[in-house]
Amino acid sequence: MRLLLLNANTTEAVTEKIAAGARRVALSGTEILPVTGRFGGRIVGTRAEIAIAEHAALDLAARHGGEVDAVLIGVSFDVGLRALRELLPVPVVGMTEAACLTACMLGGRFGLVTYGRRNAATFREIVTGYGLADRLAGIRAPDLTPAEMLTDPEGTAAAIAEAARDLADTDGAEVVVLAGATMAGLPSLIQPLVPVPLVEGIASGVGLAEMLARLHPAGAFGGSYARVGGRQSTGLSAELSRMLSGA
Amino acid sequence: MRLLLLNANTTEAVTEKIAAGARRVALSGTEILPVTGRFGGRIVGTRAEIAIAEHAALDLAARHGGEVDAVLIGVSFDVGLRALRELLPVPVVGMTEAACLTACMLGGRFGLVTYGRRNAATFREIVTGYGLADRLAGIRAPDLTPAEMLTDPEGTAAAIAEAARDLADTDGAEVVVLAGATMAGLPSLIQPLVPVPLVEGIASGVGLAEMLARLHPAGAFGGSYARVGGRQSTGLSAELSRMLSGA
Amino acid sequence: MRLLLLNANTTEAVTEKIAAGARRVALSGTEILPVTGRFGGRIVGTRAEIAIAEHAALDLAARHGGEVDAVLIGVSFDVGLRALRELLPVPVVGMTEAACLTACMLGGRFGLVTYGRRNAATFREIVTGYGLADRLAGIRAPDLTPAEMLTDPEGTAAAIAEAARDLADTDGAEVVVLAGATMAGLPSLIQPLVPVPLVEGIASGVGLAEMLARLHPAGAFGGSYARVGGRQSTGLSAELSRMLSGA
Amino acid sequence: MRLLLLNANTTEAVTEKIAAGARRVALSGTEILPVTGRFGGRIVGTRAEIAIAEHAALDLAARHGGEVDAVLIGVSFDVGLRALRELLPVPVVGMTEAACLTACMLGGRFGLVTYGRRNAATFREIVTGYGLADRLAGIRAPDLTPAEMLTDPEGTAAAIAEAARDLADTDGAEVVVLAGATMAGLPSLIQPLVPVPLVEGIASGVGLAEMLARLHPAGAFGGSYARVGGRQSTGLSAELSRMLSGA
Amino acid sequence: MRLLLLNANTTEAVTEKIAAGARRVALSGTEILPVTGRFGGRIVGTRAEIAIAEHAALDLAARHGGEVDAVLIGVSFDVGLRALRELLPVPVVGMTEAACLTACMLGGRFGLVTYGRRNAATFREIVTGYGLADRLAGIRAPDLTPAEMLTDPEGTAAAIAEAARDLADTDGAEVVVLAGATMAGLPSLIQPLVPVPLVEGIASGVGLAEMLARLHPAGAFGGSYARVGGRQSTGLSAELSRMLSGA
Amino acid sequence: MRLLLLNANTTEAVTEKIAAGARRVALSGTEILPVTGRFGGRIVGTRAEIAIAEHAALDLAARHGGEVDAVLIGVSFDVGLRALRELLPVPVVGMTEAACLTACMLGGRFGLVTYGRRNAATFREIVTGYGLADRLAGIRAPDLTPAEMLTDPEGTAAAIAEAARDLADTDGAEVVVLAGATMAGLPSLIQPLVPVPLVEGIASGVGLAEMLARLHPAGAFGGSYARVGGRQSTGLSAELSRMLSGA
Repeated sequence: MRLLLLNANTTEAVTEKIAAGARRVALSGTEILPVTGRFGGRIVGTRAEIAIAEHAALDLAARHGGEVDAVLIGVSFDVGLRALRELLPVPVVGMTEAACLTACMLGGRFGLVTYGRRNAATFREIVTGYGLADRLAGIRAPDLTPAEMLTDPEGTAAAIAEAARDLADTDGAEVVVLAGATMAGLPSLIQPLVPVPLVEGIASGVGLAEMLARLHPAGAFGGSYARVGGRQSTGLSAELSRMLSGA
Repeated sequence: MRLLLLNANTTEAVTEKIAAGARRVALSGTEILPVTGRFGGRIVGTRAEIAIAEHAALDLAARHGGEVDAVLIGVSFDVGLRALRELLPVPVVGMTEAACLTACMLGGRFGLVTYGRRNAATFREIVTGYGLADRLAGIRAPDLTPAEMLTDPEGTAAAIAEAARDLADTDGAEVVVLAGATMAGLPSLIQPLVPVPLVEGIASGVGLAEMLARLHPAGAFGGSYARVGGRQSTGLSAELSRMLSGA
Repeated sequence: MRLLLLNANTTEAVTEKIAAGARRVALSGTEILPVTGRFGGRIVGTRAEIAIAEHAALDLAARHGGEVDAVLIGVSFDVGLRALRELLPVPVVGMTEAACLTACMLGGRFGLVTYGRRNAATFREIVTGYGLADRLAGIRAPDLTPAEMLTDPEGTAAAIAEAARDLADTDGAEVVVLAGATMAGLPSLIQPLVPVPLVEGIASGVGLAEMLARLHPAGAFGGSYARVGGRQSTGLSAELSRMLSGA
Repeated sequence: MRLLLLNANTTEAVTEKIAAGARRVALSGTEILPVTGRFGGRIVGTRAEIAIAEHAALDLAARHGGEVDAVLIGVSFDVGLRALRELLPVPVVGMTEAACLTACMLGGRFGLVTYGRRNAATFREIVTGYGLADRLAGIRAPDLTPAEMLTDPEGTAAAIAEAARDLADTDGAEVVVLAGATMAGLPSLIQPLVPVPLVEGIASGVGLAEMLARLHPAGAFGGSYARVGGRQSTGLSAELSRMLSGA
Repeated sequence: MRLLLLNANTTEAVTEKIAAGARRVALSGTEILPVTGRFGGRIVGTRAEIAIAEHAALDLAARHGGEVDAVLIGVSFDVGLRALRELLPVPVVGMTEAACLTACMLGGRFGLVTYGRRNAATFREIVTGYGLADRLAGIRAPDLTPAEMLTDPEGTAAAIAEAARDLADTDGAEVVVLAGATMAGLPSLIQPLVPVPLVEGIASGVGLAEMLARLHPAGAFGGSYARVGGRQSTGLSAELSRMLSGA
Repeated sequence: MRLLLLNANTTEAVTEKIAAGARRVALSGTEILPVTGRFGGRIVGTRAEIAIAEHAALDLAARHGGEVDAVLIGVSFDVGLRALRELLPVPVVGMTEAACLTACMLGGRFGLVTYGRRNAATFREIVTGYGLADRLAGIRAPDLTPAEMLTDPEGTAAAIAEAARDLADTDGAEVVVLAGATMAGLPSLIQPLVPVPLVEGIASGVGLAEMLARLHPAGAFGGSYARVGGRQSTGLSAELSRMLSGA
């Protein structure tokens, strides 16, 4: 199968990193097709950048979504998730959605570790938006920047492990989601320090996208996810405009 | 005060219509500044068009948000609401948010009338995202298109009144929100047919934006709504890029 | 417009204080009409006093509600709110309801600061009763008495600021409601110490009451807020008895 | 034990009816002490009358609550429940609270039958206020008045049975609460027509009040239900004023 | 009345302890009939043992449930509660369910103290399963084993009192449930140390079972609790097989 | 990988049917190992049979769980799910859990079709127990018996399709879960009749179990899912007793 790995950040280095993570866990028959956002924040991290990335994700899907069997959104805010499900005939999975649903199969309530208080609020909204607030034991957001995570991987890993352990010990989390594109590969490193299973979105997301592609669910022809054609628009890329118009 | 009326649809006729509605209810000292989206769906009505309009709303705010006292989002899906609150130093109100909060002050649980089943799902998600699911008595979505609402205003009004009355009689709604930019002006027309108060987003939104502008709340310097500068981006309009970078 | 400021405490000094707060923020055309409870607790602060004040609020409305355009309940427990909405043909706003709804327009989840643990439980019930539990990040109740708030305003302000900051830093509140009639005027004093916007009920309530009076919503003629006449009663003030009987 | 049956309606005939119902089910050692409200609505049935009855219930408790072992509130809106728990050293049970908690022990989700749409909204708020919204399968409110229930008992019973059966068949209620002081005695009459158990508040309430009196729980000396003395008030009955002041 | 006290632990000493607790509080006319599980964990304390005890509880009821007026499940995980309600024609109460519902009548939100973090998660699921999550202020699980509770009763009592007090002071619990079969008798010992009422399941459960037996509710003949006969099974005890087949 | 397909019904024909369904969708390297319950209901369909099957599922896992890579519970009530997660070192998935989580990735709110009103209540509790109540649009339970589903497959399929379509059209379900072991294979048959995607538990469950086995999550060594050894028991099968004791 062909899996579009859609990174709506505009930084190719991030794309490469998550593509490497995805390839490590994909089935042998899965081809990972990574693409990078054409406009928007270098690293999506604010509400404004998330809003822009909603559009950027669609633009990428319009350009590259034609010949794939599934899509994995490789931005931890799952930008464009609902819109892509409406727009594309193949399964679409968000990496944080994937991690949260996987966590649901490994225990009771799950915790979530991200970095930076700003992200804590955003992820709470995302998890709540998935109807999973009752499964959420708590969120920890150690004060780390994406930059630090690159320059001090060991200190970063230690801080994240500490946060995950605290979620288990204090908040009663039975699984911990590590939320963020840079978390790929981290669970195996720090798992010995944390008493409950760790999951992250790239590995979970590749697995779920592969599983859904095989399940081959029907597309909706009713409801809010049914595709509609003939939508008129202006000022968009030719590919996205064409996809909306259904031509 | 100067109130930016931000229409992220790319159809000017819609902008004019909501601007007229806004001017009918504004305080005498309020100047309504309507603007129209530069890219995206002619009439935002699908999940894909909503995603694009998130970006378009920010682009408009970057161009026109500099010298205003408050912003009212004149698309009933409240596109860009959270991002604009982060980005701008002045109060931002979404028209459907405004109608729902106004409804909360007029009774217990409220119903919501929109048109088309696709919209029913989307508005349910929006109301839930505002934490107001417990106040929502029900949603009705008569099978009307925006086009019909223009060509057959009387039939449309009757269908909407019927839906609102049914929400009151069957679902126990004590107030009914008419959701949609084209609903401005409708409450007074059909109110006699509905046993509970009707509210819509333009009148509510203008009033709340005026009220917030006078209250003059402080901006956050912590949390997920605190403005951050120095964000690097690519491929955006010069105005939006500048606003993100904080220059 | 004429705004009845209904203080169901039986202490006139409190009425004067909140009336001053209301006048500071009212539109130039708004006349503030403050009234004081005729029976009940000097300072409403227990569940029993709240129960009595439910009645006292109605008694006041029956005496003074005839020629006004809106009512603001100036007791932070919003006593009589639902009953007054049923009884009066004009909009009625509770000061804590007003602060909470205003908070909803300024960020995501809000915190609430009051004084005394007893009040913490009561306000949690009130916010939950408004269907806003999902928006509530947390409550802090520094151990202050209303008396201390009068005799040591600076220490009080510092304790409240500390509580508000802690709600933002620890609980992730993105806005903080200062709940209590004595909080009027406090936000501007302590805002610099708190990283998220502060709101209180008198300023919010005056603004929302003015906004609703202008919106001029229809009264319900169905549902649980529809006014009914012909109710027989005994032992009430002549004014309240007459209002119930609809004579 | 001595059980104060507190009817905050001001109609003695209602008191007699519920007292008879209570005596039919009480343990042999239980003395039922019925009292009637001294002021307020003849039949409490509007939001305004409920607000007044909050006060009236306290007034009754201050007069008669001194030498009893438990209190049952014999108005189906459970007026004064929380305030009486704060004020009195003995257990206090509301009749609708009692019926709902009893229902929780007889099945999964319960339905509730009352009369008149106005009451439907009020009971939904009451059940939600008890934190039991997730147990509530639905509410039915046949269009009956208390008067009709007296003049046409058979038609009334049939309408209530039909509503209860519909809750079971359509909404999946596994138990049905008959809410209203006039429902005492009805369950046994119509039970054969309804496929799930019926409960009402007087029988449930007497049983729970007896059970709590025997359990003899400690009073709170902390939290929002701890009794406080020394409260100053004005304009209240001597008995209530004395109870508040703790003299 | 005859009350079957169903202990699905396979340790008779526990049965004796809870039977003694039950007899201390039962009405004079109540005969306590304690029975002990025939298979399963010595002390039910893991999820696996709970699953097994679901079956063991039914097996006990099939053997001993024939001539009783009510059943109290004397394992704090309320094993078999829903199944027994379907299977038996008499009221069935779970001891933790009983304690939680009793707590609901004594205050607002309640806390719960158990021992061991494993149990904390399980009890949270149980309380949530009863639809009472909104009433739950918090859970504390001091690191005690059932063995310690037997060998060091004073230290145990002190640790439990400390946990209960902390729930009141920190989490705002207004009542505290002591969850566990070994908690019988503890409330009166440690109540002076805790500012809010304490309840436990044996005393609450006996009282509620007595109350329900007197109320004598009808059995369901529809819905998910209606008894069905003619169920075929294999490999079960003769008594349970017979009960399922309805012979 | 080796996937234990655990059928806690005691009817081998059901095992064969679900095994066939599982083999149709499994990856080529997946070996399906079906086992049948040794005691309990022929067809688990009542609350009592579910309680017994909790034990039977553990007994099966103790006998057959030693050399497998994952477990799929092939009873639609997901019997033993939590206990098996505690007991086994490999991933465990419930078939209805699998279908619900898969549904979450294909749309917004999902509906659920089962047969028989009794099951409707049980599945609502199961979905709620997974914390997914907010995702549940509604449940339909056409009055079919498992027997009819075997003897009249076409009529059954038509009734289920009708129920699914009604969930989409009336309740706004965007995906529909077909709950029941006999639903395997049905989605593809009736999908053309239903405007939203259909999922069922065997296909979803095999896919998710394969995905989790590859993800190879760590086992918990803390929290309520951590395995504990040394548990003493009586009256159980040698295999289960040994598994509890950890020998």
